[in-house]
Amino acid sequence: MRRLVPAIADARSESDSTMNYLRNTWYAAAWADEVSRNLFSREILEEQVLLFRREDGSIAAVSNVCPHRFAPLDKGRLIGDVVECPYHGLQFDGSGACVRNPHPHGCGKIPPRARLKTYPTIERYGVIWIWMGWKTPDPALLPDYGWLEQPETYREIHGLCEVKAYYELIVDNVLDLTHLPYLHEGGLGVSKKDLEVENVEDVNEGDTYWCKRWSNGIAPSPDFMRFNPILAEFKCDKTNYVRWNAPSHVAIMPNYWKSGTDREHLTNLHIATMLTPAREGHTWQFWSLARNFGLDNDPLDEIMRKAARVGLEGEDVDIIEAQYRNMGTSDLFSLKLAALPGDITPTRVRRALQRMIAQEQAELAEIASQAHEVETEATA
Amino acid sequence: MRRLVPAIADARSESDSTMNYLRNTWYAAAWADEVSRNLFSREILEEQVLLFRREDGSIAAVSNVCPHRFAPLDKGRLIGDVVECPYHGLQFDGSGACVRNPHPHGCGKIPPRARLKTYPTIERYGVIWIWMGWKTPDPALLPDYGWLEQPETYREIHGLCEVKAYYELIVDNVLDLTHLPYLHEGGLGVSKKDLEVENVEDVNEGDTYWCKRWSNGIAPSPDFMRFNPILAEFKCDKTNYVRWNAPSHVAIMPNYWKSGTDREHLTNLHIATMLTPAREGHTWQFWSLARNFGLDNDPLDEIMRKAARVGLEGEDVDIIEAQYRNMGTSDLFSLKLAALPGDITPTRVRRALQRMIAQEQAELAEIASQAHEVETEATA
Amino acid sequence: MRRLVPAIADARSESDSTMNYLRNTWYAAAWADEVSRNLFSREILEEQVLLFRREDGSIAAVSNVCPHRFAPLDKGRLIGDVVECPYHGLQFDGSGACVRNPHPHGCGKIPPRARLKTYPTIERYGVIWIWMGWKTPDPALLPDYGWLEQPETYREIHGLCEVKAYYELIVDNVLDLTHLPYLHEGGLGVSKKDLEVENVEDVNEGDTYWCKRWSNGIAPSPDFMRFNPILAEFKCDKTNYVRWNAPSHVAIMPNYWKSGTDREHLTNLHIATMLTPAREGHTWQFWSLARNFGLDNDPLDEIMRKAARVGLEGEDVDIIEAQYRNMGTSDLFSLKLAALPGDITPTRVRRALQRMIAQEQAELAEIASQAHEVETEATA
Ligand code: FES
Ligand code: FES
Ligand code: FES
Repeated sequence: MRRLVPAIADARSESDSTMNYLRNTWYAAAWADEVSRNLFSREILEEQVLLFRREDGSIAAVSNVCPHRFAPLDKGRLIGDVVECPYHGLQFDGSGACVRNPHPHGCGKIPPRARLKTYPTIERYGVIWIWMGWKTPDPALLPDYGWLEQPETYREIHGLCEVKAYYELIVDNVLDLTHLPYLHEGGLGVSKKDLEVENVEDVNEGDTYWCKRWSNGIAPSPDFMRFNPILAEFKCDKTNYVRWNAPSHVAIMPNYWKSGTDREHLTNLHIATMLTPAREGHTWQFWSLARNFGLDNDPLDEIMRKAARVGLEGEDVDIIEAQYRNMGTSDLFSLKLAALPGDITPTRVRRALQRMIAQEQAELAEIASQAHEVETEATA
Repeated sequence: MRRLVPAIADARSESDSTMNYLRNTWYAAAWADEVSRNLFSREILEEQVLLFRREDGSIAAVSNVCPHRFAPLDKGRLIGDVVECPYHGLQFDGSGACVRNPHPHGCGKIPPRARLKTYPTIERYGVIWIWMGWKTPDPALLPDYGWLEQPETYREIHGLCEVKAYYELIVDNVLDLTHLPYLHEGGLGVSKKDLEVENVEDVNEGDTYWCKRWSNGIAPSPDFMRFNPILAEFKCDKTNYVRWNAPSHVAIMPNYWKSGTDREHLTNLHIATMLTPAREGHTWQFWSLARNFGLDNDPLDEIMRKAARVGLEGEDVDIIEAQYRNMGTSDLFSLKLAALPGDITPTRVRRALQRMIAQEQAELAEIASQAHEVETEATA
Repeated sequence: MRRLVPAIADARSESDSTMNYLRNTWYAAAWADEVSRNLFSREILEEQVLLFRREDGSIAAVSNVCPHRFAPLDKGRLIGDVVECPYHGLQFDGSGACVRNPHPHGCGKIPPRARLKTYPTIERYGVIWIWMGWKTPDPALLPDYGWLEQPETYREIHGLCEVKAYYELIVDNVLDLTHLPYLHEGGLGVSKKDLEVENVEDVNEGDTYWCKRWSNGIAPSPDFMRFNPILAEFKCDKTNYVRWNAPSHVAIMPNYWKSGTDREHLTNLHIATMLTPAREGHTWQFWSLARNFGLDNDPLDEIMRKAARVGLEGEDVDIIEAQYRNMGTSDLFSLKLAALPGDITPTRVRRALQRMIAQEQAELAEIASQAHEVETEATA
């Protein structure tokens, strides 16, 4: 695949494997607190992206590869809002323009090809979101992680790890909660018994897919009572919803409500997972735990961070990386597998994503054929 | 290649490189003492095999890959004679059958594809032998390592190492003993002089290939006198036979006999090497040293184990791995090499194995073409 | 590509990637002080080369791969001027001839294919130069590093490192000195200001390419005054010439001359870099620093060695390896890049080398087609 639409330069030609990614969509590029006045780069969809904050705090995201001779710009210097290449000193601003050629021979003119590819970004929910496609970026396509902007109601911790697997396996993991009491010692609040009695509904609202699990009039699990002792005093309704938005943004929301009320909440926990493919078989996993209790309980942060390390970065990642090695492909549907009820939402989501990618590729082929016609006419 | 014959499910399609392996034959899967009530997996002919003992001590060998979503079963639990998948809890018995689906939605029925591929095994000579082919397993094809079942006559130590080379190079090494005084300091009882005077005969009895070396009326080597001081008292005949059985099972039998007797033995040493390809360029080397002397000499075990570490796992493996890197292929005959007399049996054995693999592939092609005819008729 | 011309045996067939190398030319195989009475091997142009000194001090360079079964000869023994294979003891002399087969069965005759490929070498400038081609080696093609043979005038230190990049990127680095004040803290005596005012001329004399930079009537840089305090007393002319000879031999010569004189030198520093491809993406970088001052200043050696480690083996190699990873190819011209004035000589040199390689390949194709005709006639 060659990118045809962007007018901006892209020194590195893209491999065919980029056809596996949805491009006109938002990916998490970094936690907002990772991007500062230091040059910082991350591989995203097989492109090297340089991120920094301008002096006014706004975010710049440009290619990390100098169009002169491929030097990595993050090894250079940030001077005001300008990046100086570490190798021969070309200077670029956050719009990708080369603003200085320090070499006077040849008149010090800016070479025409000295432009960096730029990436639209939005800073939202404590995340820098990046748009890797060719269409006009659409903020309405951002998934809703509203609780990450309500510090008065939710206290949050977050982290990042690299998983050596294709991102869809991580999406499967989150969307099929039947794994909780098997993979995780203690079950993260879900026992094998719980699984058997709960109600399940797999639904979608447009492109938002849900797997909703709930039980009414139950005693809360001992794990959650430990996190939030108030639970011990009530009979509860429990909901455990998971949600997916394209391309790879999920949330698990295990919540306890006071039984018999109109969802008066007792304990809400929101686990967000945003996945960003680095390259084939390497995925950045951004995770966040937000709770509506213990808002001034500092030690609880560390307890929850440890739980995330053990469960999410440990047990889940171990099994997901082993799955990926065992599959030997990222195409699950090419393999004949046994099906279980927990697969319903993961399977729908995989198919929805496939449809989106196929449609995007079709649009791209259309653009390419039009470009070809124009060229043919021009040379006729 | 797709396996056509087995009725049992095989989630992972096999690559063409499996054409390089003989399949309807026995491989050493594990030392018997490696397989217990703990789940244990090993890669064999590019397949992940799970091994465990049932409560009655019998061996179960099934695919280690869960047919639901590729989780590695050895990370799960053994409950009685049943393996529980670590990810979503499907349970399988040693016959590969799924015996429990704990997820009640969808009625908790066993999904039709929830079957594990199984592998026939035999426990013999302290080894778990595994049959990787599609034909009925034939115990008569087991090589004869009878001395490993005669504890009253032979004392044995054994080990296992992974060699980063194609297994045929290790077979070559064992079958051509002219390397002994060159590669091994001290020559493991064989001097350059010995090589020059000994008799050599390369013969086969059916599919068993021998290279027989012998000398009559000689003084035993100092190495062997150290192992077994009784040797100092006699003039000896020495035999040093090596033997190959398909696919990759060899033995070296350096023995001293009382000269002039009808093979009254003084010192018999039997070095067995069983090779099991893990994947291209990775081989499991099972080795065993059995001696008919010093049966109650505990310290001699450690002396012999150290000799195996230095010689067999050290010097031999070093040179074999370097050969493999230098060859850049596993097909020796595609390269024009200088020939030496020691190559006779290794070369015959390579050709015999090639014939067996070619014949097996031809049978498979025949089966495939018949299957195609049946299909064509069925749809006509 | 198959080598057609050499009569000597070459056990390992060469891959197509060898088309990327100029072959009928000299490469640095080793520093002269690396080659001794110990067997020593190095990968050069994807071939394993064994180097040793004969008893008379002359150099032998032969294939390190035994033509019997690919054992690496450097693990064997040097007996007089003869190498004994570590595996089965064939003996070879430095002319590649097998001089002893110790195995009497089959009469101990030398097997016809038991020959090692040999490589012509020259010992010059403290370097063992090796000829990897099929034509008669031509000493006139040696680049001129004459100062490395003038110990009364120049004191020298040298080193060697492996760079994980294609060698042409290292040539680019040396030939384009505009990187000095950007990549190297302190600029190795060149400030950004210096770059702006100096004169530049890109010229070639036959196949020797120069980029000449000079400034007249200037104050020497503080770095150089530290190395050689005498500079503080004069107004200077400065020349900083870089030179390339095929295939990958360069020199940087930053020199200060007494202003107004006919090049009476004050400080001459000659930095030689000889590059030898090991294989795709792996290059041996031989470097040498020779100075015409401080000839009896021992501590200055260590100061200069440290500068080489930080600058040449550190900063330069870091950026070059990152360039190579970012390029994803060794073919710079297949990528559309921004051009700067410093690229002139590097680009000319890349094109000159491409022409030489293309011409060599054409000659080889011609030879191959003639060989084919001869064969056709012979079988007609
Ligand atoms: S590589 Fe960036 S200026 Fe040369
Ligand atoms: S992967 Fe085994 S039950 Fe799901
Ligand atoms: S490999 Fe060198 S003599 Fe056999």
